[in-house]
Amino acid sequence: MDFSSFLTSLGTSFVIFLVLMFLFTWLSRRPSNHVIYYPNRIMRGMDPYEGIRLTRNPFTWIKEAVSSTEADVIRHSGVDAAVYFVFLSTALGILVFSGILLLPVLLPIAYTAKNKIDANETTSEGTFNELDKLSMGHIAQKSDRLWAFVAATYWVSFVTYYLLWRSYRHVSNMRAEALMSPEVRNEQFAALVRDIPAPEKGQSINEQVDSYFKAIYPDTYYKAMVITNNKVVNKIYAELEGYRKKLARAEVIYAESKGTANPEGTRPTTRAGFMELIGKKVDALEYYDKKIRELVPKLESEQKIALKDKQQSAAVVFFNNRVIAAAAGQCLHDTMLDKWTVMDAPEARQLLWTNLSKNFYERLIRQYVVYFVVFLTIFFYMIPIGLISALTTLANLEKLVPFLKPVLEQTTIRTILGAYLPQIALIIFLALLPSFLLFLSKAEGIPSQSHAERAASGKYYYFSVLNIFIGVTVGHTLFDSFKAIEDNPNSVFDVLAASLPGSATFFLTFVALKFFVGYGLELSRIVPLIIFHLKKKYLCKTEDELKEAWAPGDLNYGTRFPDDMLVLTIVLCYSVIAPVILLFGVLYFGLGWLVLRNQVLKVYVPSYQTYGRMWPHMYNRVAVSLLLYQATMVGYFGAKEFIYTPVLIPLPILSLLFIYFCTIKYYRFFQSTALDVACRELKETPNMEGVFRSYVACSLSTEKTAEVIQFVDDLAHVTRPGSAV
Amino acid sequence: MDFSSFLTSLGTSFVIFLVLMFLFTWLSRRPSNHVIYYPNRIMRGMDPYEGIRLTRNPFTWIKEAVSSTEADVIRHSGVDAAVYFVFLSTALGILVFSGILLLPVLLPIAYTAKNKIDANETTSEGTFNELDKLSMGHIAQKSDRLWAFVAATYWVSFVTYYLLWRSYRHVSNMRAEALMSPEVRNEQFAALVRDIPAPEKGQSINEQVDSYFKAIYPDTYYKAMVITNNKVVNKIYAELEGYRKKLARAEVIYAESKGTANPEGTRPTTRAGFMELIGKKVDALEYYDKKIRELVPKLESEQKIALKDKQQSAAVVFFNNRVIAAAAGQCLHDTMLDKWTVMDAPEARQLLWTNLSKNFYERLIRQYVVYFVVFLTIFFYMIPIGLISALTTLANLEKLVPFLKPVLEQTTIRTILGAYLPQIALIIFLALLPSFLLFLSKAEGIPSQSHAERAASGKYYYFSVLNIFIGVTVGHTLFDSFKAIEDNPNSVFDVLAASLPGSATFFLTFVALKFFVGYGLELSRIVPLIIFHLKKKYLCKTEDELKEAWAPGDLNYGTRFPDDMLVLTIVLCYSVIAPVILLFGVLYFGLGWLVLRNQVLKVYVPSYQTYGRMWPHMYNRVAVSLLLYQATMVGYFGAKEFIYTPVLIPLPILSLLFIYFCTIKYYRFFQSTALDVACRELKETPNMEGVFRSYVACSLSTEKTAEVIQFVDDLAHVTRPGSAV
Repeated sequence: MDFSSFLTSLGTSFVIFLVLMFLFTWLSRRPSNHVIYYPNRIMRGMDPYEGIRLTRNPFTWIKEAVSSTEADVIRHSGVDAAVYFVFLSTALGILVFSGILLLPVLLPIAYTAKNKIDANETTSEGTFNELDKLSMGHIAQKSDRLWAFVAATYWVSFVTYYLLWRSYRHVSNMRAEALMSPEVRNEQFAALVRDIPAPEKGQSINEQVDSYFKAIYPDTYYKAMVITNNKVVNKIYAELEGYRKKLARAEVIYAESKGTANPEGTRPTTRAGFMELIGKKVDALEYYDKKIRELVPKLESEQKIALKDKQQSAAVVFFNNRVIAAAAGQCLHDTMLDKWTVMDAPEARQLLWTNLSKNFYERLIRQYVVYFVVFLTIFFYMIPIGLISALTTLANLEKLVPFLKPVLEQTTIRTILGAYLPQIALIIFLALLPSFLLFLSKAEGIPSQSHAERAASGKYYYFSVLNIFIGVTVGHTLFDSFKAIEDNPNSVFDVLAASLPGSATFFLTFVALKFFVGYGLELSRIVPLIIFHLKKKYLCKTEDELKEAWAPGDLNYGTRFPDDMLVLTIVLCYSVIAPVILLFGVLYFGLGWLVLRNQVLKVYVPSYQTYGRMWPHMYNRVAVSLLLYQATMVGYFGAKEFIYTPVLIPLPILSLLFIYFCTIKYYRFFQSTALDVACRELKETPNMEGVFRSYVACSLSTEKTAEVIQFVDDLAHVTRPGSAV
Repeated sequence: MDFSSFLTSLGTSFVIFLVLMFLFTWLSRRPSNHVIYYPNRIMRGMDPYEGIRLTRNPFTWIKEAVSSTEADVIRHSGVDAAVYFVFLSTALGILVFSGILLLPVLLPIAYTAKNKIDANETTSEGTFNELDKLSMGHIAQKSDRLWAFVAATYWVSFVTYYLLWRSYRHVSNMRAEALMSPEVRNEQFAALVRDIPAPEKGQSINEQVDSYFKAIYPDTYYKAMVITNNKVVNKIYAELEGYRKKLARAEVIYAESKGTANPEGTRPTTRAGFMELIGKKVDALEYYDKKIRELVPKLESEQKIALKDKQQSAAVVFFNNRVIAAAAGQCLHDTMLDKWTVMDAPEARQLLWTNLSKNFYERLIRQYVVYFVVFLTIFFYMIPIGLISALTTLANLEKLVPFLKPVLEQTTIRTILGAYLPQIALIIFLALLPSFLLFLSKAEGIPSQSHAERAASGKYYYFSVLNIFIGVTVGHTLFDSFKAIEDNPNSVFDVLAASLPGSATFFLTFVALKFFVGYGLELSRIVPLIIFHLKKKYLCKTEDELKEAWAPGDLNYGTRFPDDMLVLTIVLCYSVIAPVILLFGVLYFGLGWLVLRNQVLKVYVPSYQTYGRMWPHMYNRVAVSLLLYQATMVGYFGAKEFIYTPVLIPLPILSLLFIYFCTIKYYRFFQSTALDVACRELKETPNMEGVFRSYVACSLSTEKTAEVIQFVDDLAHVTRPGSAV
């Protein structure tokens, strides 16, 4: 890629971003699109424009984003979103502070070096001259100018230490603030108990749990909700819910048919057989009504069976005291660690019900099996993809799906498919990867959704850093020089460093594309908008269905974060070698901060709260990037035959010490609630029965069943005024 | 060493043991020696012979030891002693069960092998034929007979797994039993708080601690004892105690002097100057009386100053509830781990007062510095010893201490000193080593005596295993072949294995000496007996002084255990190679069990209780010995060119899994008290003021001061009937 085509690519991306931004300005004004651009506000019962001055200025959203405070973010999207912004600001801060010193100092030093460089040593294989002159590659070997780069390496490290340390403290305080809140939060009065041993004969698990905890916490224990096997109940409940929705939908269709021309309306029909596709035609309203009335008693009897006979070896126990609940989650209860394991209860909405009763050793074994599978996925994922693309060659495709033959025989399609089939397989794999990793994390036996997402995010991070970064930079070089590394393990840094400059251009383009196109799409929400309008027009009938169609979902920082980390790692690693990359990094994180701030304040609705438990992972990964950067620099200076390279050795040691001290000081509070935080006063005495009920599964809740019956009865009054009562 | 001289050495040792045992039978009968042979019983207020049938049979003590139960040991010497016996029985069990199969099977197989072995391949360098025929060295390389030895290797491992697992469970139950006790144990109502942050202005640390814990535990917090800097108070108190003892002694001397010849008695005198060695003669009774009366108000005012102005950043806090006290020790209190660190309180008698106020980071840094010093000690201790012996050559000695010249000039003394000076330096070093390691452990900032002794015991273990075992077996070979190992790290096992048989004889002698002579001395208590009688005759005047002279002290399992481990490691490593060593191992642990059982029941008095906290360390070290044994076997089979050696590879993996699972399951309970254990009912409501007072330092206790005044006043009435009142 030469300089002009790089600029073209950059320019195109920028134009796409501008177009998308104007599209956003235009589309977000139309009231019919408000549910797509302001769902967070709408769901919180606010006016979409509340507190916003309406102008035609396309940059208003930027002003709003910049002027919003952390407290706004916490109010609209909770602490977890705010923590994600702390990460973004930290990354931005690191790059800005590094750039302030590095750009004005290193660029002139590199540019004036007057060193003729070999084509194979440049960052662009000789075609990218102007940019090359601004990079460390332009400095002669053993030159004294390298001292400036040594100083820069230190500067970037110290900026990172300082900002990381400050952020850790800030997030810790934010978490403390949130946990101290005088609001009654149900999960703060609960603890999750797993590995309950088999009860004595004649005793139910519920009685056993009660007597066990009553003995330990005589004054503060309230009661327990034993986890039950809800498979059957859930199935019936889902069926019931399905019929309820269909009934509501049929009712709307019936009401709509009552036009002026046909005042009686046409009663909608359905079929009584398999999937409602075959069988005899029946009146839909009556059919669904009948089905629901049949299912309700079946559900009720199954609920009783589940509660009585399907108790499992886990429970959520409730305390009338925040301090004791927090303490319970941190204490050893039984003398054996594999019995009566107690931990902080997650929020009710994020309990992974089926994982709770998995026992201690099953969890351990599952964890290691999953780790092994992830290891295989990271290192050998190319093998199945290669196999698939080999099997789906054009010749094979023609054999397997003969009706495509005429299409496949056209030359253009043939060429495109021939070239892109492996890539398509890869893209599909990469698109499915986060879900696959989430599935694996859940298979570990993790008790809560948020924890599973954190675990999946970690796995995704390792995948991207190991594969995309190291894979692309070192590429085949590494495998070719495997023998060399085996003989002398230190040479891995040399290999890494030698292959770095060659990939700089690739990464510049990658980062630029990522931020301009990616964030443009994010801001304009073109895809959700189109889907919503299609659904609204052709599918949705009831209010509920419509609401489902525009539901904005989660910010999903779990999958965003690994991407950000990849960019940060790349930018950090190149920051001293080719300081120009800092500009791109700053743009990526600056733009990301702006766009996501807008989305968090107006669009996304968090589906759970963890009060910043993601932060230690973020911290750790930034710190690891820093280590990777320092190792790269040691290798790169070595490759420059700079004899003072050892002056960089203290840096990785310092980083390890820094990680160690931060983790020791701050980490424990992210694992469990400090008692000093839990003991703050509450606004009101908690309603313990309410706390208890919030944890009961929908399918087991008698209230929910009563609601369904009420709904059916109300409807019967309307549609068949005579038949009911 | 040939076979006959080996037998001679063995026989001599055995005779020494027999002599010492008969000496014990004879001496322990004499009532004047009871305080040496039955101090545990005497201190517990029992009759020395209670429950013992007096016979002249020298083996009575053996019958008593064998018939005693674990409950007896716990009653007489506490759980810690019982745990040490679990270790001894486990080691004994491993060796007995191994021997039952190995001796009858392997010895014939080896003896009938009819393989002519090279002199340099035997266990005795060719001079020790009979024993060599019974060892694995007698089997030809690649022989099929080696399969029997493979099976034996597995058998020993599985026996060890089984017994270790059972013992861990047993000790865990024993600890739970002890902690569940309905007795009120003061430390179970206390927690140790360290790293208290600086209080706000105008607030004392005591007030700050009170308000902090009152907020978290409003119903259960009792009060706090803030740690104070007692340096000055302790000095005055020690002076006061010294004068009190001297006064008591002077009083006894005075009373003794009132014979029939001199009914008025001679009042003892002393000197009023430095160390009471110079200055004018004064009446001792009056002088000490005056000194004490001067010191008491000084002490009282210093006590007030200490309590008010010398509060430090640590405290012992008290709860009126066992469960809450146990929970407090396990919970995070402040959001930062380096503030308000709370842990289980050790017993009052084992608090290392000056360590308590050391802050979090100071402790961390001290720990690493100490680890580094220990590392240096283990690997380079020969250097200073070499230097010392070089400096103290005879020539130098003559120069430095010229008055010894005539002695040193005698040829015999010259020869002996010349040969033994380096050894003497080594012996002195080894004798001082345990105290030095204890000093280092205390310097880490550890809060309790028992913890410091465990830490010192660990260091001693590494020292002995690394130096004595590996050092002697591998010896210079290791350093010579260092280059070879660097090229091929796997060869370390080969080196280890190749040098093992050559040292077998050395170790046989070592073990035999150790158990016959060591345990003979232990049982007969010759040294303490002589010291006691000397002190009684020439030094002791008062009852207190006499009691001090026969105080038996602690079992001191902290320094015994590393020695036992060394023997167990050696015996395990040779168990399959030269199964005869198992006999010696069984004798060592069997005799040890018997002798120490006697000592624990009748002699030693534990100075603290930790309820088995030493066990996980014992467990771990036995497991590590097992690993070492397995690694040795892999190497030794490799040296035999046995191509099926890889069938042994699963063993170390199995061991690692075993260690991992045991540790996960059981270890946590040894770190902190399980709440299920703490919640058991108490015999009586604890007297919280008594609990609190038990933690007040002697030098700060007003009661102790009052006692001293009372004592002086009482004495004044007796010695100067007119002067008082």
